[in-house]
Amino acid sequence: MLQTRHGKRTAQAYVKIAHDMVKAKLMTPEHAVRSGDPQALDQLLAPIFDSVDEKAAEASSLLTTGLPAGPGAASGIIALTAKKAEELAASGQKAVLCRIETSPEDLRGMIAAEGILTARGGVSSHAALVARQMGKVCVAGAGEISIDYTTSTLSCSGRTLREGDFIAINGTTGKVYGRKVKTSDSELKQVLISKTMKPQDSELFQAYDFVMKLADKFRTLGLRTNADQPDQAANAIAFGAEGIGLCRTEHMFFEGDRIDSVREMILFAEDYAKYRAEAAEARDDAARQSSLKGQYSQAIEHFTGALSTLLPIQQKDFEGLFETMAGRPVTIRLLDPPLHEFLPQAGPQTEALSKKLGVSYERIEALGHSLHEFNPMLGHRGCRLGIVYPEITEMQSRAIVRAALAVAKKTGKKVLPEVMIPLVGFVAELKLQLEIVNRVFAEEFAKAKTKLPYLVGTMIEIPRAAITAHEIAAEAEFFSFGTNDLTQTTLGMSRDDSGKFLPPYQKLGIVKANPFATIDQSGVGELMKIAVKGGEAVRPGIKLGICGEHGGDPTTIEFCHQIGLTYVSCSPFRVPVARLAAAQAALKYPSAAAPAAGKAKAGSAPTSAKSAKSAKAVAAR
Amino acid sequence: MLQTRHGKRTAQAYVKIAHDMVKAKLMTPEHAVRSGDPQALDQLLAPIFDSVDEKAAEASSLLTTGLPAGPGAASGIIALTAKKAEELAASGQKAVLCRIETSPEDLRGMIAAEGILTARGGVSSHAALVARQMGKVCVAGAGEISIDYTTSTLSCSGRTLREGDFIAINGTTGKVYGRKVKTSDSELKQVLISKTMKPQDSELFQAYDFVMKLADKFRTLGLRTNADQPDQAANAIAFGAEGIGLCRTEHMFFEGDRIDSVREMILFAEDYAKYRAEAAEARDDAARQSSLKGQYSQAIEHFTGALSTLLPIQQKDFEGLFETMAGRPVTIRLLDPPLHEFLPQAGPQTEALSKKLGVSYERIEALGHSLHEFNPMLGHRGCRLGIVYPEITEMQSRAIVRAALAVAKKTGKKVLPEVMIPLVGFVAELKLQLEIVNRVFAEEFAKAKTKLPYLVGTMIEIPRAAITAHEIAAEAEFFSFGTNDLTQTTLGMSRDDSGKFLPPYQKLGIVKANPFATIDQSGVGELMKIAVKGGEAVRPGIKLGICGEHGGDPTTIEFCHQIGLTYVSCSPFRVPVARLAAAQAALKYPSAAAPAAGKAKAGSAPTSAKSAKSAKAVAAR
Repeated sequence: MLQTRHGKRTAQAYVKIAHDMVKAKLMTPEHAVRSGDPQALDQLLAPIFDSVDEKAAEASSLLTTGLPAGPGAASGIIALTAKKAEELAASGQKAVLCRIETSPEDLRGMIAAEGILTARGGVSSHAALVARQMGKVCVAGAGEISIDYTTSTLSCSGRTLREGDFIAINGTTGKVYGRKVKTSDSELKQVLISKTMKPQDSELFQAYDFVMKLADKFRTLGLRTNADQPDQAANAIAFGAEGIGLCRTEHMFFEGDRIDSVREMILFAEDYAKYRAEAAEARDDAARQSSLKGQYSQAIEHFTGALSTLLPIQQKDFEGLFETMAGRPVTIRLLDPPLHEFLPQAGPQTEALSKKLGVSYERIEALGHSLHEFNPMLGHRGCRLGIVYPEITEMQSRAIVRAALAVAKKTGKKVLPEVMIPLVGFVAELKLQLEIVNRVFAEEFAKAKTKLPYLVGTMIEIPRAAITAHEIAAEAEFFSFGTNDLTQTTLGMSRDDSGKFLPPYQKLGIVKANPFATIDQSGVGELMKIAVKGGEAVRPGIKLGICGEHGGDPTTIEFCHQIGLTYVSCSPFRVPVARLAAAQAALKYPSAAAPAAGKAKAGSAPTSAKSAKSAKAVAAR
Repeated sequence: MLQTRHGKRTAQAYVKIAHDMVKAKLMTPEHAVRSGDPQALDQLLAPIFDSVDEKAAEASSLLTTGLPAGPGAASGIIALTAKKAEELAASGQKAVLCRIETSPEDLRGMIAAEGILTARGGVSSHAALVARQMGKVCVAGAGEISIDYTTSTLSCSGRTLREGDFIAINGTTGKVYGRKVKTSDSELKQVLISKTMKPQDSELFQAYDFVMKLADKFRTLGLRTNADQPDQAANAIAFGAEGIGLCRTEHMFFEGDRIDSVREMILFAEDYAKYRAEAAEARDDAARQSSLKGQYSQAIEHFTGALSTLLPIQQKDFEGLFETMAGRPVTIRLLDPPLHEFLPQAGPQTEALSKKLGVSYERIEALGHSLHEFNPMLGHRGCRLGIVYPEITEMQSRAIVRAALAVAKKTGKKVLPEVMIPLVGFVAELKLQLEIVNRVFAEEFAKAKTKLPYLVGTMIEIPRAAITAHEIAAEAEFFSFGTNDLTQTTLGMSRDDSGKFLPPYQKLGIVKANPFATIDQSGVGELMKIAVKGGEAVRPGIKLGICGEHGGDPTTIEFCHQIGLTYVSCSPFRVPVARLAAAQAALKYPSAAAPAAGKAKAGSAPTSAKSAKSAKAVAAR
């Protein structure tokens, strides 16, 4: 049993040995938990290549090696567009989505594909981020590959493949093969996700489950997941998640026809805002009000119409999540990305929208120009949208509270929504958004003649928020560190553009680890400590989470434990990794747990009480 | 005399009253200094419209009102391209450069034009920034104006003007007129800059000069200017600057033919870096070295050739600055902007470069794609360039030291270069760049058999630098706060993209002042304090400056005085403003001056001694 190969079998060997030796009392539970490599647990979930077939492919058909951005193995037909990937999946064929880079519009294709291959972008690019969240195999930034959408070809190392040819990618090693390679679901996935194997039939599952439960005995950090869809949430629960730490509502905006309503909303948002401002100025002047209504009738009709269309759709989304989470807390982040990310591409997409909405092609095109940003990361996004367009915050808040009330009524179970305001830098921003959320919740509670506990908190994802955390905590019932953006702003380093200098930086020893994978403790970490201190000073016991990609990184998890966070939130398929890492951190730093920390906290009931005092009581529960 | 109109005459009235009453002993010098509005001194330098003619223009030809981004009045012929502005100026005609937005490529056109008008961009956009530095009249972000480059027209409020028609802009009010309006140089400019009036003939100048000298008696902050060209530097000295706080070397890259050498350098930089890495790996393997030389011969020839061409050109630039500054310190920032900013536009520009360098059009185009960045503000720029391409740092260092040696020899005067490494976030970055600078300086000193004092320091412009200032100060002999970028990163807010949400933010009271004009004290200011503390702890008396646009803002200057900075650096035409503001700050907070502060400091001799101890001695001089 000790004679195992390194690589894919390490994690399997670890859980089996730990299980057997603890059962035989040859090892203490502490030792068993300490001795595992959390990172390696990824391997238990990743689909795998048949090793003989992969070797053969490596000899004959290796195209290139990209960045291993989502572990596992995927083999399928090349799809150069999301649509093609969807078509292939719909017809029962396996697809590998190959793109120069991916954007939110490719989401459905990414879901449909077995794996994702990109020519551009780093381990934290859109493709890699979404892939990890879905537990999808991904090789990113394979720069030697050149993709030509016009000829529908993919070329590399002198070979040219066409859309429809086979390709295989190994997201654990980054290798890309120009042919089909045999794959299969990991055993653990067969038990936990596809349920094609019974728990009692899998020794591996039993060993894994035993080790995870051991880990839970020591762990003091709570464990949440980043999930937007019920099936992702269900997977995360199967892996041990105790709540959702980040639901990105914008991912929901792309599904089905709703994207057209989103676009309709965006198209008329600015005019509607003008109308709102002028109407507010006109006050009691009825004649002027009526003339404004006439002048802006198109904007009013489209903007409010689009919001009305989106409201029940978002409500349904949230209902699905609340039901799946069955009483566990769900942190929902309000709209975050810049609006131009939702616009259609020029050409047929824009033409179709123009016809559907009765708006000229030129107007849609002009909007694209007007929304163009030099640095979208630092642009009109996050709560800056909700401040300029409060109607969007209102719609999303209403969808959340209505969904919560509906699910509570239907299931009789608790529903624990936590509304999260993104990109706050000034306490006044949070205050303005909070007023809307609280007003809408109160309105719906009154209508339903019942209420339920909820929290409103904020992301800490720009340096100013960390520095002024003592001001922000007066309004925020929880903090969640958005360490992706906090790293980008603190280091002045764009994740998506760092591919040109981060590799030499690592080579020269300027950075020890990729700061987008493992938290930069002396920089970003110091700001986090300042924020924790500021938050605790004003609202003792404040709930503190992390929901950046770092939340699934063992070294970062240890740091989060040390500085006293309440929970970490990570991609569903990273939950086992985080579970073991959190236990190891607790064993290593037994006194570092947050004053009122404990697993119970992540799952503890939020409250609608709005004072710091009662928030403390909640956190202490 | 007390019956003056508000507006243009306020500053004139102020200096005259202060002068007369202090001379008559009816007012104390303290009171005279305290009672002025520093901001208003701008008016003394701005070209002015004939008030009768402007009123007539307002009645008949007002097109729109944009953002007042560079005070003063400009009237001239519409030039829609930088080239056209240059042509008009060359033929002795006054031009107003009208662009949708400006980019560094427009620099020569901006210099040639009387004024600049942009349809897009805020008060801190490229146009506004450069305009203020040049003391050029500018109206930015006049959103109602639509410029069509293909038809060479400018339309607004139903009127369409053609390139060649007259236009006039008032950079103090933001007003844009569709006709010629009479203008003249301000009296102070006639005395100090154009020298068309003798000092003794101008009562206004004498009053101004008297008040400025009074201010200097109280001021403890040093005063520097941001200037890249000898004439800008000379203007700044005329206004009272004691040194250059920021010379942006990249502005020099655009002049004349040299841009082609810059482009040649960029085109082959990546291949040359590959060659360097492979050659380093091959070490003593002579055969491999020779084969690499063959393989990369084109990259080696072009890259090193371009650097050799640029070296003497940059040296000449620095010689001009050093001569003009005549013994005053000159802070030179190494290359900062992302390389794609230097590439030619597609079409004829790229074709011409292709022919000139014998490089295919496609290769230049492909480089543009490969250098494209999602968030250039946070991309491959600053010292990240010098780390990946150390040859560029070497060339610039050599140009600086050779220029310093040459001017010292020629004039017999001191030359005080201060080399500034931009965008440092990690002390290791600074260390690597410092090694190059110090090596090159030592080489040139040895060759010249003489030496001269110099400093190497860094910008503090990203939050991580402020947070780890105690580490960085171990290597940096001075800090200069780059508050433009520090504000962008600390607030997670792109200056150029903030136009959509900053106006509502100011309306709603979320921000009190525009954070790109007046420092955000609770956010950015706190980081500055952390950096000052960290720097002082490790290198007591470290020279501390500010070179962002904020350096010319009175409220910010007061803050800089309070936190103990050594000097402020601002655009040449803001120097009088800063001079009065710094004096007022010293009167308001007499005990807040830096431990070793004093006007002498900004002008004090730097040293080549590299220990913190001797740096302290320098600062204390």
